[in-house]
Amino acid sequence: MNFLAVKPLPADLEERRLTYTPDTSLVRPYVPLTPSFASGADSPRAYLERCLDAMAAHEPAVHAFVTSSAERARKAADAATERWRNGQPLSPVDGMPVVVKDMIETVDFPTEMNNPIFKGWSSRRDAAGVAALRQAGAVILGKTVTTEFACSNSGPTRNPYDSSRTPGGSSSGSAAAVGAGMCALGLGTQTIASTIRPASFCGVYALKATHGALHTGGVTPLAPTLDHLTVFGASLEDAWAGAFAVSSRAGGTPPHVGLRGDSQAPQARRPATLVRLAMQGWDETPVPSQEVFETAIARLRDAGVTILDHESDSAVAALDREVSELYDYSHDILAWETRWPFNAYRAHGNEQIGERIHRLMRRAADMTVADYEHAVARRAHLRGMVAAFNGRADGFISLSSSGPAIQDHAFTGSRSFANPWSVVGGPALSLPLLAVDDLPLGIQLAGFHDRDVELCASAGWIRDALI
Amino acid sequence: MNFLAVKPLPADLEERRLTYTPDTSLVRPYVPLTPSFASGADSPRAYLERCLDAMAAHEPAVHAFVTSSAERARKAADAATERWRNGQPLSPVDGMPVVVKDMIETVDFPTEMNNPIFKGWSSRRDAAGVAALRQAGAVILGKTVTTEFACSNSGPTRNPYDSSRTPGGSSSGSAAAVGAGMCALGLGTQTIASTIRPASFCGVYALKATHGALHTGGVTPLAPTLDHLTVFGASLEDAWAGAFAVSSRAGGTPPHVGLRGDSQAPQARRPATLVRLAMQGWDETPVPSQEVFETAIARLRDAGVTILDHESDSAVAALDREVSELYDYSHDILAWETRWPFNAYRAHGNEQIGERIHRLMRRAADMTVADYEHAVARRAHLRGMVAAFNGRADGFISLSSSGPAIQDHAFTGSRSFANPWSVVGGPALSLPLLAVDDLPLGIQLAGFHDRDVELCASAGWIRDALI
Repeated sequence: MNFLAVKPLPADLEERRLTYTPDTSLVRPYVPLTPSFASGADSPRAYLERCLDAMAAHEPAVHAFVTSSAERARKAADAATERWRNGQPLSPVDGMPVVVKDMIETVDFPTEMNNPIFKGWSSRRDAAGVAALRQAGAVILGKTVTTEFACSNSGPTRNPYDSSRTPGGSSSGSAAAVGAGMCALGLGTQTIASTIRPASFCGVYALKATHGALHTGGVTPLAPTLDHLTVFGASLEDAWAGAFAVSSRAGGTPPHVGLRGDSQAPQARRPATLVRLAMQGWDETPVPSQEVFETAIARLRDAGVTILDHESDSAVAALDREVSELYDYSHDILAWETRWPFNAYRAHGNEQIGERIHRLMRRAADMTVADYEHAVARRAHLRGMVAAFNGRADGFISLSSSGPAIQDHAFTGSRSFANPWSVVGGPALSLPLLAVDDLPLGIQLAGFHDRDVELCASAGWIRDALI
Repeated sequence: MNFLAVKPLPADLEERRLTYTPDTSLVRPYVPLTPSFASGADSPRAYLERCLDAMAAHEPAVHAFVTSSAERARKAADAATERWRNGQPLSPVDGMPVVVKDMIETVDFPTEMNNPIFKGWSSRRDAAGVAALRQAGAVILGKTVTTEFACSNSGPTRNPYDSSRTPGGSSSGSAAAVGAGMCALGLGTQTIASTIRPASFCGVYALKATHGALHTGGVTPLAPTLDHLTVFGASLEDAWAGAFAVSSRAGGTPPHVGLRGDSQAPQARRPATLVRLAMQGWDETPVPSQEVFETAIARLRDAGVTILDHESDSAVAALDREVSELYDYSHDILAWETRWPFNAYRAHGNEQIGERIHRLMRRAADMTVADYEHAVARRAHLRGMVAAFNGRADGFISLSSSGPAIQDHAFTGSRSFANPWSVVGGPALSLPLLAVDDLPLGIQLAGFHDRDVELCASAGWIRDALI
């Protein structure tokens, strides 16, 4: 997977190196400010202007956007400002600037998917998530760079802290835009690692809710049984409020009814027990990243959290082994399910399609129905092993990525830590609580199907304990 | 549901009244002719020219097409002609002229969905079913009229046998085009009654395979847990070969792996036992239609088929009662799941949306999550009752519609006979074996989940027994 073509660097791209710590992050939380919107001490319009300033400062180096409209955003922010002043906000995300991964349909911006076939293409409708956010008052600021079809060739986006490094993918632009403080929320997708990995690299919160809990309507599919609509947030509160605004208005992908919970993030709550999984990613992780994670685990232990790991618990050891074997069969699921639309694209624009997609389709062509059924059965077995921890533990903890962003613009980084929870389908969060080499590194916290609220409550406590 | 706006009648629409009997049908089977393609006695190109002649003769009265391309079709038919002559056809449907309901994406024709928002809109890709048919060598002749978003305002299509009557909907154009002999196969969709009903009215075969068995990728969704991609065929052999060509190349909607069986329709096989369901539709059915159905049932009994009905079997009586109560909760499922995309359309083009859609969205707005969960649970209960007959019977038999096509251009007819199998999700066929008042009337044969092959084998025997 290391040999992806890289698009030419835009001529105006500036070089950039900033020092990251969780305390000096560029991110710009929104929900925590909303109490000041009623008084008029602050406003959605003023917040938007700060985002636009951040765009002016950082976008020449980051290149997160495919397209944007400050004019439309200002109009929407002004309307939200009025509603907050009148004490009648539509939701906690009323007025929140949001960016949308360019795999997700928008009525007022093209959806190009970083592929020439869709240059200038309009869906003439909003995706379910976009429609819901608009209904909740959010300000759609623009569309953000994706790797080609969320799967193949990388785009021009650079890591907001070091332009020699990847922002991660495939939701490169949404993660980088939130990371650089250009907005409070980004919509993304995850089929393998496309949200948790860029969140880790860009120093932002992300929520990949339970599979199906956020409606995927209007997101061009890759593999439906793996595809998730996701959110990046400047804070945990922003991520939750954004996800809930989507889910409570659009529902889940039928028949999923969506997230339980409330429009505001749940109260922080200490998890009694966490399962620490090494997964395949641990051996790939450089020592400095291993060390900061060990320190974090030690602090959680000191604060009274029981940590189960493969050394102390045979069920954890068995799960870790099972997880480390999923790469092959999960890629069988991916290849089989992406035959449409990829083979349809290839039939009419073969030379316009990236090499990774051709490889996936060759893999699918070599498969039989029995191979796919075998992969789905392996996944069901894994899901059963994970579910067996429900009641014994509150969640699963690991790094979000095997180290901070790598110095590469084609390869978007290892998927080893993030892929398992795409396959399992339970909720996963990336928490930007670590720093290595002055770069962000995320902690991944994963939970049980449809227990997104409980996972978010645990995440709030972990954040408070580690920062 | 009777008060739908009707689009203005095209100025060039001719009045038409033809006499229908199953023996004088206009349909034009394809698969039965293919043996003559190898010898050169006949050819896909010659077959296409006969279809184009039928278009010239009937389309001014029927108005089945939104758009078509004889030029592209001729080119594709010539290539298929060569392959048959060389003894290397791509599949049994190589060269078969196919029409595509205008809810289904095509790379080379606009997809307009009979709504002004999508006037001239291009998806820039083929839906899974279209891509698969092209891969199998089929000739995509054009796009056919749908009711608005397969759900609301009717289009201009008229019944091929009587232009004062509806062709049924929502797959109006595909059913009418196959019915008038303009092609051998039509792609359609069914969420409530959109295939079985127009097949009944237009005198064609139709297969609504098991939910998920034909990949719905690239079909604009209504309600995903009810939506089916379907086929209309000039013969049972055409319908099966078309469905199998789709399913074996595109697969089912993941994780469904698609139809079992072979590229050719299974051998006819006498069903030992059929369940006769009255459903809500029987009381709506005029006496002459009841009489031809009673005659058909008597002939099946005479041929040795055991018929279970609500008078002779208490489980059938219980199922019949349960089926007759599904209208309300199935419309709850429909309303809830269609919030996207319908509310997204309404947010940006409220006045361009038909009244039935507004009513559905008002219904959804009055619902709670618990209402939807209740409806889904009722459906699960019904599915269990149907599945309990597996082993006791080979299938379920009824009319496809409560009488032949009605004299209406706005209302597309009662959904009472077809809706239950959309809700249950098992396979259903409409067989054009009856005639009333010189108009076609279909027999519906439904079966058990993923037993599409067995159902098709029973259908073949019933056809041979009744014609």
